[in-house]
Amino acid sequence: MKLTERQKEIIEIVKQNEPITSQEIAERLGLTRAALRPDLSILTMAKILDAKPRVGYYFVKEPGAVGKLEKLLEMKIEDLQSHPVVVQESSSVYNAIVTLFLEDVGTLFVSDKEGYLVGVVSRKDLLKVTIGEADIQKLPVSVVMSRMPNIIVTKPEETFYTALRKLVDYKVDALPVVVEEEVNGQTRLKVVGRFSKTTLANVLASHLSEL
Amino acid sequence: MKLTERQKEIIEIVKQNEPITSQEIAERLGLTRAALRPDLSILTMAKILDAKPRVGYYFVKEPGAVGKLEKLLEMKIEDLQSHPVVVQESSSVYNAIVTLFLEDVGTLFVSDKEGYLVGVVSRKDLLKVTIGEADIQKLPVSVVMSRMPNIIVTKPEETFYTALRKLVDYKVDALPVVVEEEVNGQTRLKVVGRFSKTTLANVLASHLSEL
Repeated sequence: MKLTERQKEIIEIVKQNEPITSQEIAERLGLTRAALRPDLSILTMAKILDAKPRVGYYFVKEPGAVGKLEKLLEMKIEDLQSHPVVVQESSSVYNAIVTLFLEDVGTLFVSDKEGYLVGVVSRKDLLKVTIGEADIQKLPVSVVMSRMPNIIVTKPEETFYTALRKLVDYKVDALPVVVEEEVNGQTRLKVVGRFSKTTLANVLASHLSEL
Repeated sequence: MKLTERQKEIIEIVKQNEPITSQEIAERLGLTRAALRPDLSILTMAKILDAKPRVGYYFVKEPGAVGKLEKLLEMKIEDLQSHPVVVQESSSVYNAIVTLFLEDVGTLFVSDKEGYLVGVVSRKDLLKVTIGEADIQKLPVSVVMSRMPNIIVTKPEETFYTALRKLVDYKVDALPVVVEEEVNGQTRLKVVGRFSKTTLANVLASHLSEL
């Protein structure tokens, strides 16, 4: 929402003198109340100012707060993503668990030798195998992971909103951020980032604290 | 942002006829362009309509979208929380893991015999113990949990924004929603809900899809 110079002036006057009547604001600006009315209604409708009957106008919040929150929804994943943690499909389950703790993430992405995405392994996948009989030092992580093409991914050019919807609709904790590469006529995916529910919470909180 | 009847009418006209000039809108409403101007500037400043020079007005988005997003931040946890999953401190680690899978949650809250909160156990806590030498069928969950008073909690009357900040600032995946009770002169906490990063993502997504 783009404010005029006069609207900005009105906000400053209210900030410093609240509560203040429209008559008093008009006097300070050398205007009639009638001339002031359209600006005051815009500012109260936008909830930048609030009016209490017989008391006057109050300052509610900085203009721009709303726009910023909306802008977040349209921001690109490439500007929001976290660092991805990738293990090779031949890694043992034990190694995957150690990596998960060392890197302090909830989800690992699994790649083949060429570095292309082949699967995703969550804390739940790992927990399920550790309570079984398997020898987790020997069992490769590829046996317990969710496997391509049943992996929900996002892309650097997708928006915050799209990624949020995927996390929720597919009930996953994290999405690999991928770019497509053509290899021998096949489309393979390279992992370039991570967008998890933790990333989501962090991005939202830091965005809101800047308002 | 509360719209007048005339502003709502203008929005409908633009929606169905975009692009449409202010002259055409004025004619449909039986008004002069001058009389229409204040409403049109409010609607474009609120980014509900957009104007392209020499083309006319376009519809951009539903009014209310912005206000709703802001309102979410101030909503109370009691209106947003998920169902809590609680195990007793005497439960085995094995039982806790089974509960976690059956209930499909990432974090369990742990209570004493009287039902008061004594700890929280995460997937990571459980994963850590399962790769050790312990007999998880016998080991009580109280040995591996995070313990009161080192538990970050939220309350039914706290806001979405406060809970979001706690999840992020304390790096936890879930908060127990608690109410205080006085027991023999001591303040104890009863768990009445759960607010996790998954709750957060779900609430945000469903809120946005209603816009």
